[in-house]
Amino acid sequence: MRFTSEQRLDDGVLERGFTLGEIPGFLWTPGSGTAPAPLILLGHPGGLHEMRPRLVARARHSVAAGFAAATIELPGSGGRPRSAAAEAARADLHRALAAGGPVDDGIVDRLVLPLVEKAVPEWRAALDALLRLPEIGGPVGYAGGVIAIGIRLAVVEPRISAALLFAGSFVPRTLVEEARQVTIPLQVLLQWDDEGNDRQLALDLFDAFGSEEKTMHANTGGHTGIPHFEGDEGNRFFARHLR
Amino acid sequence: MRFTSEQRLDDGVLERGFTLGEIPGFLWTPGSGTAPAPLILLGHPGGLHEMRPRLVARARHSVAAGFAAATIELPGSGGRPRSAAAEAARADLHRALAAGGPVDDGIVDRLVLPLVEKAVPEWRAALDALLRLPEIGGPVGYAGGVIAIGIRLAVVEPRISAALLFAGSFVPRTLVEEARQVTIPLQVLLQWDDEGNDRQLALDLFDAFGSEEKTMHANTGGHTGIPHFEGDEGNRFFARHLR
Repeated sequence: MRFTSEQRLDDGVLERGFTLGEIPGFLWTPGSGTAPAPLILLGHPGGLHEMRPRLVARARHSVAAGFAAATIELPGSGGRPRSAAAEAARADLHRALAAGGPVDDGIVDRLVLPLVEKAVPEWRAALDALLRLPEIGGPVGYAGGVIAIGIRLAVVEPRISAALLFAGSFVPRTLVEEARQVTIPLQVLLQWDDEGNDRQLALDLFDAFGSEEKTMHANTGGHTGIPHFEGDEGNRFFARHLR
Repeated sequence: MRFTSEQRLDDGVLERGFTLGEIPGFLWTPGSGTAPAPLILLGHPGGLHEMRPRLVARARHSVAAGFAAATIELPGSGGRPRSAAAEAARADLHRALAAGGPVDDGIVDRLVLPLVEKAVPEWRAALDALLRLPEIGGPVGYAGGVIAIGIRLAVVEPRISAALLFAGSFVPRTLVEEARQVTIPLQVLLQWDDEGNDRQLALDLFDAFGSEEKTMHANTGGHTGIPHFEGDEGNRFFARHLR
């Protein structure tokens, strides 16, 4: 991991850009002089540049609650090489959505499964690198989408102790099955009126999770309308499980 | 309203028993010397004596967050006169549950609709009396079950500004329809594995509520297994809406 940029945000948060091989990422920490902080990995749908304002807002909120936060670019997003198969699946998805019809499971599988296969080892490699930094210590949480990536990470990565998942993207059926193997505490956010989300599938997924402690917060509103107060509730969830 | 008992609990909370005509109730306040507190009405399934330890715990939690809390006995519960029709419906309900079959809508209607018709005016009369006390001021919240009573109160009682409803009792279909007229902010608690609760009906009910701000917290566990942290989340919900 190589740091490529560093700036102090106006609230004192230290933001550093880094690369991990070809993968760009960001790390946000409280700055110098504090004890090692538990780490929250910020999941997102891909495209660090476009997502940056929202990611910075989430990171500030995490850091204000005593956590470090980090994220990396997804395979095939931002400046990273595109996969022809994923692009074809994405085009099929957009066509299906534009036609207003249901989205075929095959399209979701072709789009999401290779992404999960490639992204999860990258998040784990980022975790290896981040946990070597002296300013980061203790347990790790995963927060955000792509929920399929969060599911797989929760199953295979024992260093992740809790996850706050955004139900709002397409989930291959095999990942819904895989969710039965998840045992860490979960908080799942569901936007009740999310036009791009299959509500019943999200409820089935919540039901499938094997975790003894799982909570779903369903709120009125569309995909990007998660209420402000859920930021605080997310911090309190992680405070219960990462300290 | 006539106060019939008064005691100071070990954490300083002042607990007073009262009667409103034939209806017994309790009021919990921070004690003397504080500003008028917003009031939270504590709903329950009936039977003040049996419910008392849980009600006192909920009331203490509310008072610790700066609210007053009050409750009254339901018609046909505790020492109040039984209704033969309600008792017959209750017996039918227990038979249906014991047989493991679905509970006929007719049974639910016969049990719950007369209860709502009788209880809601009583809660409103209690509100009249409670809001005359100098130690109570500002907006009012309703918290708890019977959810059908909470729905009707939210529709007809303009002094109730927010409600925290427990999805965990039988709801007549007409009340699900009536829920569309509810517009106050809501937080709905759903115990995901509640054996005595129809999960799909609870989800349909949440969907039906007309409120612009509504949140559902679904947690693993059975009817009485609401996680401890939901107490704090309830207080924060009311703090957002009753101050």
